[in-house]
Amino acid sequence: MTYRPTQRTSLRRLPERARYDPETVHSILDEGSICHVAFVVDGQPYALPTGYARMGERLYLHGSTGSRLGLRPGMDVCVTVTLLDGIVLARSAFHHSFQYRSVMVLGRTELVTDPAEKDAALTALVEHFMPGRSADARAGSRRELAATAVLAVPLEEVSAKVRTGDPKDDEEDYGLPVWAGILPLAIQPGEPIPDSRLDPTVPMPSYVREWKR
Amino acid sequence: MTYRPTQRTSLRRLPERARYDPETVHSILDEGSICHVAFVVDGQPYALPTGYARMGERLYLHGSTGSRLGLRPGMDVCVTVTLLDGIVLARSAFHHSFQYRSVMVLGRTELVTDPAEKDAALTALVEHFMPGRSADARAGSRRELAATAVLAVPLEEVSAKVRTGDPKDDEEDYGLPVWAGILPLAIQPGEPIPDSRLDPTVPMPSYVREWKR
Repeated sequence: MTYRPTQRTSLRRLPERARYDPETVHSILDEGSICHVAFVVDGQPYALPTGYARMGERLYLHGSTGSRLGLRPGMDVCVTVTLLDGIVLARSAFHHSFQYRSVMVLGRTELVTDPAEKDAALTALVEHFMPGRSADARAGSRRELAATAVLAVPLEEVSAKVRTGDPKDDEEDYGLPVWAGILPLAIQPGEPIPDSRLDPTVPMPSYVREWKR
Repeated sequence: MTYRPTQRTSLRRLPERARYDPETVHSILDEGSICHVAFVVDGQPYALPTGYARMGERLYLHGSTGSRLGLRPGMDVCVTVTLLDGIVLARSAFHHSFQYRSVMVLGRTELVTDPAEKDAALTALVEHFMPGRSADARAGSRRELAATAVLAVPLEEVSAKVRTGDPKDDEEDYGLPVWAGILPLAIQPGEPIPDSRLDPTVPMPSYVREWKR
């Protein structure tokens, strides 16, 4: 099975970077921590960074009830997750690029009303960026659940873009005495910083100490 | 001097996170490597990851002449740069968050036609993600320059959002035996990977080996 490319998700430029298989799409979505959601309010587009989670073929986002410029049900959106894997240093300035993997999901936000799905999505939103955490943190109260809107976007109109491998230079530039290659980049955790009000007898969980992407 | 908040850049939710001073805005823009640009084509919003550079009070982006869904002059855009600084672990699931600094620039893309400005912007686009590189790489040919559209967005309608400091828990949750704090995250370079066709007598430049953000 692959996601069917549409006119809106087909790459005309550099089509060799396009991927439509769920394995690639899911792996990028699951590795990312935040997404950027594009939406339109009064004709103006916005790109909003926010958390997300995937369960099966649905993406979940927090709605924001208090914000004028927040996400609402029934909005046309583009959810983009980008993993910056490196800097591509070619011999010519023109062929410099980024090593990256990205996913674009086009769709319309749906309010999640089913209590079981909403509960699972809220757990997934925490587990997505910190696996293991939801077993420790105090679960949402009825009041907190009521104050939180969860939105779903189905994974239907989806594409991934993947750039890997060496720089691409023009053939006549390969003889230039210019270093070329990839500088890999990755998100690395630092030393965890305990809350200044933390009870010092509470141990740091292993999922914090051993977090990685 | 500060950027004047507009109805579109004022935060109604969590207004204490808003910043409008150029020092904060510039430092976030200069530290980021890629941005996400939101724009609208046929009513559908897109969030596109791409490189950028800042010179003074203007942001510069590559236009894409070959792409149906690319950036064009005269487009309303939102350019968002997000630095993910960490994961905020509160005692309650509800108060989990990200440590981040982000900038949103609202504006309309302008085609850069002045040759000197275009040349400086193309240099800045390379220098932005790899300072020192433009002195080594082969400069753009007349044909390459003609094939590249450079777009500018003025820094006028701009806001930054900054989350720092401890998790915020509800007062009654501070006694819970749950670890709370920040897991800092940062982009780190790995070991540079030489192009498989690199002449092994060409040394690796110090700006590659010592790259940091």
